[in-house]
Amino acid sequence: MTQQNSALDALWMPESVAVVGASADPNKTGGRPVNYLLKHGFQGKIWPINPRADEIEGLPCFASVADLPGAPDVAIVLLGVERAEAAVRDLAAKGCRVAIVLASGYGEAGEEGRRRQEGLRAAAGDMRLLGPNTIGAMDLTRGIVLSASGALEGDNIPKGGISVASQSGGILGALLSRGAARGIGFCKLASTGNEADIDIADLIEAYATDDTTTVIVAYIEGIRSVEKFRHAALTARSAGKPLVVYKVGRSESGARAAVSHTGAMAGEDRVYDALFRQVGAIRAETFSDLLDLPAMLASKRELPGKRIAILTSTGGAGSLVADNCGILGLDVPELDDRTGAVLAGLLGQDAPMTGNPVDVTLAGVEPAIMTAATEALLASDGIDGVVVVVGSSALARPDVAVGAIRAGAAQSDKPLIAYVSPHAPHIVELLNREGVPAFAAPETCATVLKAALRSGPVGAPLALQDNVSVPDDLPVGTLNEAEARALFDAFGLSGAASHVVRTADEAIKAARKLGGPVVLKVLSREIAHKSDVGGVRVGLSADNVGAALTEMAATLAARNLPEPEGYLVQAMLRGGMEMILGFRHDPQLGPLVLLGAGGVQAELSGDSTLRLLPLAEGDARAMVDELRVKPLLDGYRGGPAHDVDALVAAIEALARMGAALGARLQEAEINPLFVMQDGQGVAAADGLIVLAD
Amino acid sequence: MTQQNSALDALWMPESVAVVGASADPNKTGGRPVNYLLKHGFQGKIWPINPRADEIEGLPCFASVADLPGAPDVAIVLLGVERAEAAVRDLAAKGCRVAIVLASGYGEAGEEGRRRQEGLRAAAGDMRLLGPNTIGAMDLTRGIVLSASGALEGDNIPKGGISVASQSGGILGALLSRGAARGIGFCKLASTGNEADIDIADLIEAYATDDTTTVIVAYIEGIRSVEKFRHAALTARSAGKPLVVYKVGRSESGARAAVSHTGAMAGEDRVYDALFRQVGAIRAETFSDLLDLPAMLASKRELPGKRIAILTSTGGAGSLVADNCGILGLDVPELDDRTGAVLAGLLGQDAPMTGNPVDVTLAGVEPAIMTAATEALLASDGIDGVVVVVGSSALARPDVAVGAIRAGAAQSDKPLIAYVSPHAPHIVELLNREGVPAFAAPETCATVLKAALRSGPVGAPLALQDNVSVPDDLPVGTLNEAEARALFDAFGLSGAASHVVRTADEAIKAARKLGGPVVLKVLSREIAHKSDVGGVRVGLSADNVGAALTEMAATLAARNLPEPEGYLVQAMLRGGMEMILGFRHDPQLGPLVLLGAGGVQAELSGDSTLRLLPLAEGDARAMVDELRVKPLLDGYRGGPAHDVDALVAAIEALARMGAALGARLQEAEINPLFVMQDGQGVAAADGLIVLAD
Repeated sequence: MTQQNSALDALWMPESVAVVGASADPNKTGGRPVNYLLKHGFQGKIWPINPRADEIEGLPCFASVADLPGAPDVAIVLLGVERAEAAVRDLAAKGCRVAIVLASGYGEAGEEGRRRQEGLRAAAGDMRLLGPNTIGAMDLTRGIVLSASGALEGDNIPKGGISVASQSGGILGALLSRGAARGIGFCKLASTGNEADIDIADLIEAYATDDTTTVIVAYIEGIRSVEKFRHAALTARSAGKPLVVYKVGRSESGARAAVSHTGAMAGEDRVYDALFRQVGAIRAETFSDLLDLPAMLASKRELPGKRIAILTSTGGAGSLVADNCGILGLDVPELDDRTGAVLAGLLGQDAPMTGNPVDVTLAGVEPAIMTAATEALLASDGIDGVVVVVGSSALARPDVAVGAIRAGAAQSDKPLIAYVSPHAPHIVELLNREGVPAFAAPETCATVLKAALRSGPVGAPLALQDNVSVPDDLPVGTLNEAEARALFDAFGLSGAASHVVRTADEAIKAARKLGGPVVLKVLSREIAHKSDVGGVRVGLSADNVGAALTEMAATLAARNLPEPEGYLVQAMLRGGMEMILGFRHDPQLGPLVLLGAGGVQAELSGDSTLRLLPLAEGDARAMVDELRVKPLLDGYRGGPAHDVDALVAAIEALARMGAALGARLQEAEINPLFVMQDGQGVAAADGLIVLAD
Repeated sequence: MTQQNSALDALWMPESVAVVGASADPNKTGGRPVNYLLKHGFQGKIWPINPRADEIEGLPCFASVADLPGAPDVAIVLLGVERAEAAVRDLAAKGCRVAIVLASGYGEAGEEGRRRQEGLRAAAGDMRLLGPNTIGAMDLTRGIVLSASGALEGDNIPKGGISVASQSGGILGALLSRGAARGIGFCKLASTGNEADIDIADLIEAYATDDTTTVIVAYIEGIRSVEKFRHAALTARSAGKPLVVYKVGRSESGARAAVSHTGAMAGEDRVYDALFRQVGAIRAETFSDLLDLPAMLASKRELPGKRIAILTSTGGAGSLVADNCGILGLDVPELDDRTGAVLAGLLGQDAPMTGNPVDVTLAGVEPAIMTAATEALLASDGIDGVVVVVGSSALARPDVAVGAIRAGAAQSDKPLIAYVSPHAPHIVELLNREGVPAFAAPETCATVLKAALRSGPVGAPLALQDNVSVPDDLPVGTLNEAEARALFDAFGLSGAASHVVRTADEAIKAARKLGGPVVLKVLSREIAHKSDVGGVRVGLSADNVGAALTEMAATLAARNLPEPEGYLVQAMLRGGMEMILGFRHDPQLGPLVLLGAGGVQAELSGDSTLRLLPLAEGDARAMVDELRVKPLLDGYRGGPAHDVDALVAAIEALARMGAALGARLQEAEINPLFVMQDGQGVAAADGLIVLAD
């Protein structure tokens, strides 16, 4: 691990770079890397390799990897898919630490491509590999550019604290060119392509521990190792570096396109959503958010509360911003009288100007007034952040307008952003370069402010139970309900009172013991859907449960179903709220717990939520809070309050059961789980468990 | 009306324009209108009015309105709020047809402002008024610019078929400058400001009947006359001109800001949503959509189906577009073999290339290949529209890339749009100017394609019942349930079988007649919530309904409630699905019907929909289809199918009742309305009606 990390360090701080397949023609792709290294001021050794050239850009050229004067820290392999593997083998033999392979035609290109990628990986041995199918890596702050991307042609790429990890090279180029045009400052950027070795999590981990990086951006098509990703994201979180992710593949079309692109496997989108939330990553909902959110977060100003003031010289644009703030749950409150009086003084009005948005109309053209008004709003105890609207009047003197806004921000550490209403990309760029996050969409202003809200820490992992005795004779496959109940019970997930019976007489005795109405169910590992085959009868009593059992046995026999292991006589639950509590494995992202409202209406409205394991303190309660039926649990319109604490405990118990049984627990579901009135706990009315070997 | 319309024609085709308060200094706001008129090539007479100047821009200047050589078709009033009213009065006296008042300080500025606005309106008399608080009007295709907006400084504003009506001048300027930068061609633009006379509906109506306008854009803060707006929107619809609207004020913050801006009153946002849908207008969800959607629709290419092909040279961007298409319900299907073979031939591959997105990688740099591949995709019977992704490779030769895409589109009338992946505003502009709608956001590509889906006509208005006999002795205020039931019955909205009774004996007889379990309810105009005061008892029979009535009477009396008008014994409904059907008046947009799923879970999940009156054929069925519980109505998971036809008929009956009773019907609600199994109709189990004088 340490060795591997130091290899990644070599990628970012190489003392020597070999360029395998360098071309003497800087207009060709093969000519770019040496040219870019020189242009961006790389201070180490550059070793071009090309058997048909003596020198490239004034540097002596080597005929082969073997001819190099030493082991390069990094090698950029520009060769096609046919020759790359040999070059990688030679580099590994020479002692190179990281090879960057640009060629495509590997894992994304069918069965043959996958074989080629395995060959490439094997040829690399202990040497780290970036790619194949990558556009490389670069550290703009240190002038180290290990890439042939045309996106680096620009001369004036702003440097800053935003580092980018992307699984797509094209997207990396798009982000860089779009960001540069907007004055957004970048630090390190790399694309991982097919991830034969170095993956997106390695990059995030590297950025998380990198001094110059302050915000991490990740473009993700699929995550190969959820453990590595989780560790990297939590490292970033601990380091106070926001991680902003865009995950493609929400729809089936997108997932399919991503697979054919870099061979990544997509999981279910809502599971990714849970993962990102659980590690404290911020998910960009739109592609443009993937630049807008980092631009905001790089300002390092947190919103202490939800109260936003909007300062505008153009009423319509102020309304747009206010409306979008409101839609996202931010407040645009009336101002306090003291602030209103300061504004009135500035604008020559008699009455305090407590309206918000603050419409300064033509006075907004005066820089001193804009600065003073911005300062007054930021100084107000009733305001947590400010949006300044840049109107058409700023077009005439952009530098003055920008200077006025910037000066207004200087006296406070509350967030200040700008909404630029007319087409004025130069003002957006200037503001961003001056440290005032600026946006051309009113929706974005609200989105970035919301993301800047101060957030609590990620909860500590849930403590696990250490003294649970798991029955050691559990069968493989689907347990019958009595077996499942016993296992749930062992983890503290209790159910309705019940008795296992074999005969009609035993059933009658059991019903008498339970009192009240009972349910009769068949116990069988072979029957997945008991109701469908007549294996469930409800609303029975001691008077008729015996006859019901006899009848049920006959019905099952008539259907040629295997002899049941017995029957369950269970107290019939009433008066609680029905929920569904489940556990399963996402094929990509691993074990998870699910909580949903019970009943068919809730199912149709999709009222459910999930968390991946491991659960953290507070996760289970947050799951309950996310459900739309939460008000019903709390007691809606005079209805009873339900035992939410017991429901939270049940979710945590299932998570502990999943952690304890590990891969053995394939699937578990309690449906319905009755949440009884406050203080009366929860009770499982049914239970399914599927165990693996 | 005819006279008024011809006055609006004068606004767009004036032969003479007076500029009241013109300045000789073109750098001052007052100097702009004459300057702009000349610059944009106005061919008619320009009459500057300024008592302190002899000539302005070479034109003779007049000392006052009275001195003008004739009645101007249009006058631009540049004076402040103090002097504008006198100028308007003079202009009206002179016979001017339309005055444009730029000054603010009217309806948006408190009580005094509202009085000023009334004075201005009165001073105008029969003369039409645009504003106050407007930036004016312009027709770019004819070079008529009646404005002082700095947004018109640009020299190269593209001309086209998009006409804009805005309630905000600042927003109009932002749209113009943003659109111009993107090569989007405009026709007519005007802001209505405070709408003392000419309102947003007048402009839409004018654009709908204007030969040069092909797409109408409206920025709306609030609609003053829903009838005028509906008429204008339907006129546009009949003329085949898409109407794209952005409505600010979805959130409380936004609504408040809009009110303080132009004094417009906001209604409930979802009611606006219904209005827009009912008149066939397309609602822009984001502010940028307000330009993006018209840019798409101006191409006049409709999407015959949902199958989209994506042609890309950069895999990541192709995935982004595909994903967003999928999210919005468009398909990105595999290509047919024939098309795949054509593509393989073009790209020198052996096997048919049926993957979609079609990733041509570096071959995408060759214009001939791009053109031929675009043509092949557009020619495919399995594809309805194409997105071409413009990657970094196009940056080197933008004109070639644009030419290749444009040539590919020429042979087809299916929609072709471009997604521009790197920062390349010049390519976006060039593509738009060449008639290929181009966008820089993958989300937008999907949004505009969806909006380009061929849509059916707006349904004909629902036929009304002509032979309903409404009881003529209806009281004012809240009816008791028996009265409400009688009125609902008259319109065909039948309820559960029931009898009105006064005594315990009558109740017992009624229960016997009904058979089965019954419900007993108090009949009282004074009791709004019967359940809350013990006025409802369910699950009764002839055995105990008499005692229940006696008990209920005592309970009500003990609470000092007024003597009830009687009691209702009603058959207890079971086995149906509970819905809520209602009628009310939106304070801004008028009468509407509401349909929602019944029960507390549906209420929490907001499963309801609404339509404004008048309903059209098909609206009621569409309302049912929109509910999330629709699958339950249809028979979910082996459950019974319910009588959806009867539910549709009930919605239409309530709409007819609303139309027949007009303003008298303040509010009506049937909650619950039981939808019984298929063929068994619906039945109201309760009913509330509130009548006005």
